[in-house]
Amino acid sequence: MRILVLLPILRDDAIERETKKELARIASSTTQYEVRSLPSGPASIESEYDEWVTSPYILNEIVRAEKEGFDAVFVSCILDVATNAAREMVKIPVIAAYRTCAAVALTLGDKFGVVTIVDSVVPILFRKTREYGLVENLAGIRSIEVPVLELDAHREKVLESMVRESRILIDENKADSIILGCTGLVGMAQLLQEKIKVPVLDPTPICTKFVELLLTAGVSQSSHAYYKPPEKFRRLSNVPYLTGDS
Amino acid sequence: MRILVLLPILRDDAIERETKKELARIASSTTQYEVRSLPSGPASIESEYDEWVTSPYILNEIVRAEKEGFDAVFVSCILDVATNAAREMVKIPVIAAYRTCAAVALTLGDKFGVVTIVDSVVPILFRKTREYGLVENLAGIRSIEVPVLELDAHREKVLESMVRESRILIDENKADSIILGCTGLVGMAQLLQEKIKVPVLDPTPICTKFVELLLTAGVSQSSHAYYKPPEKFRRLSNVPYLTGDS
Amino acid sequence: MRILVLLPILRDDAIERETKKELARIASSTTQYEVRSLPSGPASIESEYDEWVTSPYILNEIVRAEKEGFDAVFVSCILDVATNAAREMVKIPVIAAYRTCAAVALTLGDKFGVVTIVDSVVPILFRKTREYGLVENLAGIRSIEVPVLELDAHREKVLESMVRESRILIDENKADSIILGCTGLVGMAQLLQEKIKVPVLDPTPICTKFVELLLTAGVSQSSHAYYKPPEKFRRLSNVPYLTGDS
Amino acid sequence: MRILVLLPILRDDAIERETKKELARIASSTTQYEVRSLPSGPASIESEYDEWVTSPYILNEIVRAEKEGFDAVFVSCILDVATNAAREMVKIPVIAAYRTCAAVALTLGDKFGVVTIVDSVVPILFRKTREYGLVENLAGIRSIEVPVLELDAHREKVLESMVRESRILIDENKADSIILGCTGLVGMAQLLQEKIKVPVLDPTPICTKFVELLLTAGVSQSSHAYYKPPEKFRRLSNVPYLTGDS
Amino acid sequence: MRILVLLPILRDDAIERETKKELARIASSTTQYEVRSLPSGPASIESEYDEWVTSPYILNEIVRAEKEGFDAVFVSCILDVATNAAREMVKIPVIAAYRTCAAVALTLGDKFGVVTIVDSVVPILFRKTREYGLVENLAGIRSIEVPVLELDAHREKVLESMVRESRILIDENKADSIILGCTGLVGMAQLLQEKIKVPVLDPTPICTKFVELLLTAGVSQSSHAYYKPPEKFRRLSNVPYLTGDS
Amino acid sequence: MRILVLLPILRDDAIERETKKELARIASSTTQYEVRSLPSGPASIESEYDEWVTSPYILNEIVRAEKEGFDAVFVSCILDVATNAAREMVKIPVIAAYRTCAAVALTLGDKFGVVTIVDSVVPILFRKTREYGLVENLAGIRSIEVPVLELDAHREKVLESMVRESRILIDENKADSIILGCTGLVGMAQLLQEKIKVPVLDPTPICTKFVELLLTAGVSQSSHAYYKPPEKFRRLSNVPYLTGDS
Repeated sequence: MRILVLLPILRDDAIERETKKELARIASSTTQYEVRSLPSGPASIESEYDEWVTSPYILNEIVRAEKEGFDAVFVSCILDVATNAAREMVKIPVIAAYRTCAAVALTLGDKFGVVTIVDSVVPILFRKTREYGLVENLAGIRSIEVPVLELDAHREKVLESMVRESRILIDENKADSIILGCTGLVGMAQLLQEKIKVPVLDPTPICTKFVELLLTAGVSQSSHAYYKPPEKFRRLSNVPYLTGDS
Repeated sequence: MRILVLLPILRDDAIERETKKELARIASSTTQYEVRSLPSGPASIESEYDEWVTSPYILNEIVRAEKEGFDAVFVSCILDVATNAAREMVKIPVIAAYRTCAAVALTLGDKFGVVTIVDSVVPILFRKTREYGLVENLAGIRSIEVPVLELDAHREKVLESMVRESRILIDENKADSIILGCTGLVGMAQLLQEKIKVPVLDPTPICTKFVELLLTAGVSQSSHAYYKPPEKFRRLSNVPYLTGDS
Repeated sequence: MRILVLLPILRDDAIERETKKELARIASSTTQYEVRSLPSGPASIESEYDEWVTSPYILNEIVRAEKEGFDAVFVSCILDVATNAAREMVKIPVIAAYRTCAAVALTLGDKFGVVTIVDSVVPILFRKTREYGLVENLAGIRSIEVPVLELDAHREKVLESMVRESRILIDENKADSIILGCTGLVGMAQLLQEKIKVPVLDPTPICTKFVELLLTAGVSQSSHAYYKPPEKFRRLSNVPYLTGDS
Repeated sequence: MRILVLLPILRDDAIERETKKELARIASSTTQYEVRSLPSGPASIESEYDEWVTSPYILNEIVRAEKEGFDAVFVSCILDVATNAAREMVKIPVIAAYRTCAAVALTLGDKFGVVTIVDSVVPILFRKTREYGLVENLAGIRSIEVPVLELDAHREKVLESMVRESRILIDENKADSIILGCTGLVGMAQLLQEKIKVPVLDPTPICTKFVELLLTAGVSQSSHAYYKPPEKFRRLSNVPYLTGDS
Repeated sequence: MRILVLLPILRDDAIERETKKELARIASSTTQYEVRSLPSGPASIESEYDEWVTSPYILNEIVRAEKEGFDAVFVSCILDVATNAAREMVKIPVIAAYRTCAAVALTLGDKFGVVTIVDSVVPILFRKTREYGLVENLAGIRSIEVPVLELDAHREKVLESMVRESRILIDENKADSIILGCTGLVGMAQLLQEKIKVPVLDPTPICTKFVELLLTAGVSQSSHAYYKPPEKFRRLSNVPYLTGDS
Repeated sequence: MRILVLLPILRDDAIERETKKELARIASSTTQYEVRSLPSGPASIESEYDEWVTSPYILNEIVRAEKEGFDAVFVSCILDVATNAAREMVKIPVIAAYRTCAAVALTLGDKFGVVTIVDSVVPILFRKTREYGLVENLAGIRSIEVPVLELDAHREKVLESMVRESRILIDENKADSIILGCTGLVGMAQLLQEKIKVPVLDPTPICTKFVELLLTAGVSQSSHAYYKPPEKFRRLSNVPYLTGDS
């Protein structure tokens, strides 16, 4: 199987390095992972605006991946950006990070918590939780207030903050597992798990193995949830961009 | 007050005509409505893919509207396309069609139904209902299977179908009000209401008056639900478009 | 349009003065507001018992208002007292304060909080939230422990308490908007909003403009939620009153 | 124990006879039941308006009952009319018909259905279900369209209709028990149960025995849900009544 | 009526003594209670493993009780152990402690809390609450960290801890009643209630009177929720037990 | 990795054959599956009583498997029998069939349906769905009324019935995926999927691959949801069995 791991941002060396390290750890003889970043797009995704900015490039990559013969795509961003739309466009499985981790968490206990990076992401993840019908299983979402692009420079402080926020979710909100609320935190699950003693879910290993599960089971996203878009006239040249972006 | 009514599609004469007719009916001496369509984008919105295609153009128009001094924007599409992201970008109220009609329906009875145009829109509206936390108030969503762009040509058959689907929602699912599930149905609420005897909510009058309500009450979308996107590097030139679109 | 703003209590100078001040601010050339209090009833409403005591007088005023040609009635009490029953009796829109503010809050963010006056009102508002199917959208209800009739004498302390309770709802319960949980707090929304930086909803401007919205859109409460009471024999003379009341 | 069974309507010979017959069946040496109707009020309760009309008389009877030394009151009407307000006024248990039957049904299976008398009652019972937080346990509410006061004249047809509506609730909505949705149906539970083979709950025996349970267990309604109304000025003379009533 | 009160553990003198004391208090001339413990099984139930260990013995006792002519069985353990399975096997009512107390709590207020003995029981009770569809009515579950078998030795400290945990549930989580979360706490309800001023529900009096209610009303568990197990081959000799158990 | 696939029933040739066939299809060089049935227990599981009968033998096998060095256990029965208790007893992942399939279904669409074998299983699965907090994601559960042990003899008729029941779930209840509601249906997913055109989830391939996912991601069930049972005295000899069983 050939699986595309799409980092839906401009190339970031630290994140790409850590992602590949994790993939190397889980590689098998039958599954190949290829990591790609975007040629254009934002440096990171921390708002619904960032989601929009990134969507066209993501959809383009996914449609191309299907044509190139990839068997599935994992969009490596906790906001599940563009995954619903992508599922309308291709038949190969499109794996969404938060959705998949939430589903896996459901099988390990009664309520999961999420520790994410910045406050701006909290309401967006809350709305996703609602969209997926999982609000009853959410213990809470807390942030450590470190932007994606500063994660690598502060790994130690990041871990400390994650332990602190996780413990609040466990003790006060009855979380019995924790989801890493940013794919930039790749590789930190085991460290955190040792400290907080509940399962910690890292989207990268969870989702890449989840792809294999779907392929083996012969299932993909439902065409009754994601209809193929009808053909129609669309004039898409001259996309504008807003002041401040380039 | 100056309010922008944004039809988030390529100019469509029928929809623009009916929208303006409705706005003329509700105009007042203190409120001016201006109707705009998009210079680029899709001919209609009937999928999450269409949402993506349209988002950049919509956000551009809304940011521009705020700069031009508009007091609010109503995005006239039942899928509330790009409204969350827009709310992050501007301070003036951004009014979402489905969300607002659902809220108004809640004040008139216990459960609302939605009659929309095509099947592909049904799961998208269902996910929006969940995202807004209103699933308990939804009686059901049914479609009449007429694409947006054929609505004008079949007004009579459309009305008949809407009566039939509404009655099912009322009799079997206990809907006590009906939301017109496409802004292309503008102007049909009174006709339908006379036949089915429950309140029928047309997004155009509901949302344009709702704007006035917010402005008078001095409130806008919450910055705790929609954080201002952080400044960061975004490379947005060369947006791709997919085969089949132009 | 002629709209009755019914203060469903014995005449209270301070509340009537503040209500009229607010209505003067939002008056337009096409809408007339008339404020009425009750000839008999309680001095204020802070229990379900008070609701009962007030209901006959309210229903009487609303039925009379329809006969006098009013286009709608807003019952200015956060407990939405007698509004369901009134909706069975008349065809003109009957606007309920809490229900309407909750609906408007839903359009501005994901979860609203309520700051009310006394503890006894908290469970009553909680039950209303449930009745309206909105418990998933409620962040919490907190009280400042100042009875209605002492509000005017302690405006400054009241504001301070409201800021404190609002901040708890925002920080701990993730409220992204605040509803003023007593119509006696009329006129304080802007002051509070400046301090807490999330939308604050004052029932008086919200509901009076909401009436206009409904009238413009041509909708009223659903006859499928509020059936016309059947004619039957009712012997209603000699209503008793309980010891302590006069 | 002395328990008041309050029929919250004008004296109706058939209902009083059937109620007493049922109470005679369940009487014990330690519990005395006394049945009272209202001196004034409506002939029956089939709307929220009827609830209002009846509330003052009910509250008066309940406050009086406590003073006379009754140990508890069961308000024998499926709409639980005035019970919340009464619970604020007295310390003895006030038993609500629908609420109690719903609670008992929860112990016998997963979802209950309600078969009631007229359509106008359906949305009112639905709102009560929501108020009590039990919507997830409700299979559905259906009516047989026979007004309270005609029940006695059509016992056979009533039973037939109840069987038919119950079967729909069981087969299509997965009800595993049925609540008699009108206390005027007293005495019909066993007949219905024999035909539909799921538990049928008649409010009269359920609630009168429930009273004994509460008294034996030494518990009553919570003062944290129903606060004692504060003393204040209430002018309650001259209660109006609406045209058509006398 | 003859009712079996089954303590589903090995004979424990303190619990049996307190249970009988409570039953003596509520005995009536028409109802006889018989208390039985298990000949084999665990010393107490504090895990799902304990539930399994106990189930065969419980089911055996219940099937035997029906044959001996008992009219109903109350399984006196807050985890409602084996009650669903037992309901499939017999027609006489099988009363479950937690389920019944939760139902009764629903009739006294809006939200109940549970104070239980050890942390390991908290997630089990939470899952039961969900299974019964009552999560919306649960304020919270807290433990005092005293194992069942040490309860009798520390009655005073136990009461103190229960007051402390109850107050947190009442003040922070809006519980308006408290359920004793272990049947080993039998007899402590009145003491606790006097201190915390909200209704306290002790499973023993609640459930034994509930049995009478069901018998009087002529209802039992629904055969549509608990189907009679089909006859089939089952080889049940040689049940294993795990190391450490004897 | 060595994974135990436990068929929690007496050896059944057809089910074991089909299970092994499916496992052979998905085997990889790094994962070994071993299939075991029970030496004692029921011939099949179609009631909560059957669950009890089976639990001791299952728990015994799982504890033994951990000691033998297995890396995980999949309990191959849709009722997830004994899995919660087993999770308290061992540290290796214990995979539950229904729970896992439901979680996977959540990632493919908005609502899943279940087609199971006999009516008696329907309420049990409904209660599991509630226990897992997933009722909002369940479209419905329908049965084909063929007992487990007759499945192999009627494969064709079974498929037909499954198509029919699935279509009802899809068309009327908006299921967008279908879970095979009995592990005895192993191997039928692709046939059914071809006919109904939505994803069909077969517990055997889903759960065996899910095990690999958990092992690779380094997570197992949460000790905060399933506490280790405290050591205590348990007398477990002389387990009784009920008349009719041997």
